[in-house]
Amino acid sequence: MPGSVWLVGAGPGDPGLLTLYALHALNTADVVLHDALVPPEILALGATPRLINVGKRACGARTHQLRINQKLIALARDGLRVLRLKGGDPLIFGRGGEEALALAAAGIPFRIVPGVSAGIGGTAGAGIPLTHRTLARNVVFATGHAAASAELPDDIDFAALARIDVVVFYMALRHAGTIAERLIASGRAPGDAVAFISDATTPRQRVTAATLASAAVVAQRLDPHAPTLIVVGPVLALRDMITPLQQAEPMTLAPTPRAATGDVP
Amino acid sequence: MPGSVWLVGAGPGDPGLLTLYALHALNTADVVLHDALVPPEILALGATPRLINVGKRACGARTHQLRINQKLIALARDGLRVLRLKGGDPLIFGRGGEEALALAAAGIPFRIVPGVSAGIGGTAGAGIPLTHRTLARNVVFATGHAAASAELPDDIDFAALARIDVVVFYMALRHAGTIAERLIASGRAPGDAVAFISDATTPRQRVTAATLASAAVVAQRLDPHAPTLIVVGPVLALRDMITPLQQAEPMTLAPTPRAATGDVP
Repeated sequence: MPGSVWLVGAGPGDPGLLTLYALHALNTADVVLHDALVPPEILALGATPRLINVGKRACGARTHQLRINQKLIALARDGLRVLRLKGGDPLIFGRGGEEALALAAAGIPFRIVPGVSAGIGGTAGAGIPLTHRTLARNVVFATGHAAASAELPDDIDFAALARIDVVVFYMALRHAGTIAERLIASGRAPGDAVAFISDATTPRQRVTAATLASAAVVAQRLDPHAPTLIVVGPVLALRDMITPLQQAEPMTLAPTPRAATGDVP
Repeated sequence: MPGSVWLVGAGPGDPGLLTLYALHALNTADVVLHDALVPPEILALGATPRLINVGKRACGARTHQLRINQKLIALARDGLRVLRLKGGDPLIFGRGGEEALALAAAGIPFRIVPGVSAGIGGTAGAGIPLTHRTLARNVVFATGHAAASAELPDDIDFAALARIDVVVFYMALRHAGTIAERLIASGRAPGDAVAFISDATTPRQRVTAATLASAAVVAQRLDPHAPTLIVVGPVLALRDMITPLQQAEPMTLAPTPRAATGDVP
């Protein structure tokens, strides 16, 4: 009897933003393979005894991903219920699609459990509505990582991105200067507001305001190891009106194990 | 003592995609104001006795939104813990930003709890990775509704949208033909794949394949009352490889009330 794999998003960091499915999986899986981005507070919510951190990338992203795929398949073939837990959402820059394809090719049944993507949860926590009547009717999520390296992909269509109302870059802090420069070259004003959101929805969350013109300098003052979103758009003007009355600190919810019926991972 | 308001996303429909915060709020709020899009299965998970459906829009969207804002403020001023529960995420085409601004202007403390947006959860449930190495490095969420009516906004920058790898339109079924036509006029190929996802992540979910060329005709065969996403992008080619082994049917998780510490809504 083969096991199965759940590909699950853990949300942006605050344990309260876990889904019920994610908590269920944490309580019923035989083994959890998690990214380094999943905080220990979330892993502690579950009852699964076996946790494997697969977040280190010592041997290159590509090789590393192939090894994770092989590990998922091998554990499932051993009959285990495997939880693959990722920060944010598994299919928004989470490489969950690659893992799903590998599992499908190997004949392993799997479930994809979406999560609150960092771009959505992190901006909400920072008091930034990504869409807003009269200000922003579309929002684009883009990555600062190329497929096989940490370099900024050289074929990003900045002319198109610049014309979308709100632009959210994931994992792009080291390229902030280049991104800002190209957005300006594509028609955004140098004075357009930028927000850097680091360690979103965690107690270490830090929101730093800049403009496209100052983004490169401001980015150099930020912690290069903290996962950081870069947000550009007119909605940033709403932040000062929203945050004074917004309660945004993470809350503690008691980790009561939940009974469940139906399939298990 | 004034009360407070939680602006909470209920996710795309499957109760398993509720966040722990959302369930906590359902169990501790004094009153719930919910959209028509929030399914009864989710409302039934909570212990709150007083549910108010504010999903009808008999008097026009604008007036209706002002009345909701006033109602939230009035209930909070009565000292109540108010849960404003929306489908998907409150800030992705959910008008949560408008409600947050109204609450802030009235001096009412509030919390914004992000949810799994329909565009992310609904596509995952349909076996569509919105991003995928080599195929899609950016994704745009756009709306088919104008600010004050159900008409397609006349200033949508289709030339920019057409150049983003993956385009997800919310609430746009009635405009599918126009959207497809303008994307083709802006450079997408008539044979580009389109998916319509109706009632995403619910037992009634329906995924219908089309192309940009056939989208108008296919859309006419779909239920105009079902909330429907329109997805365009090369990642749709992965769907046939993913869905055969994907477990996507909603599961029942027992609605155990959760103990909680910290702030309450």
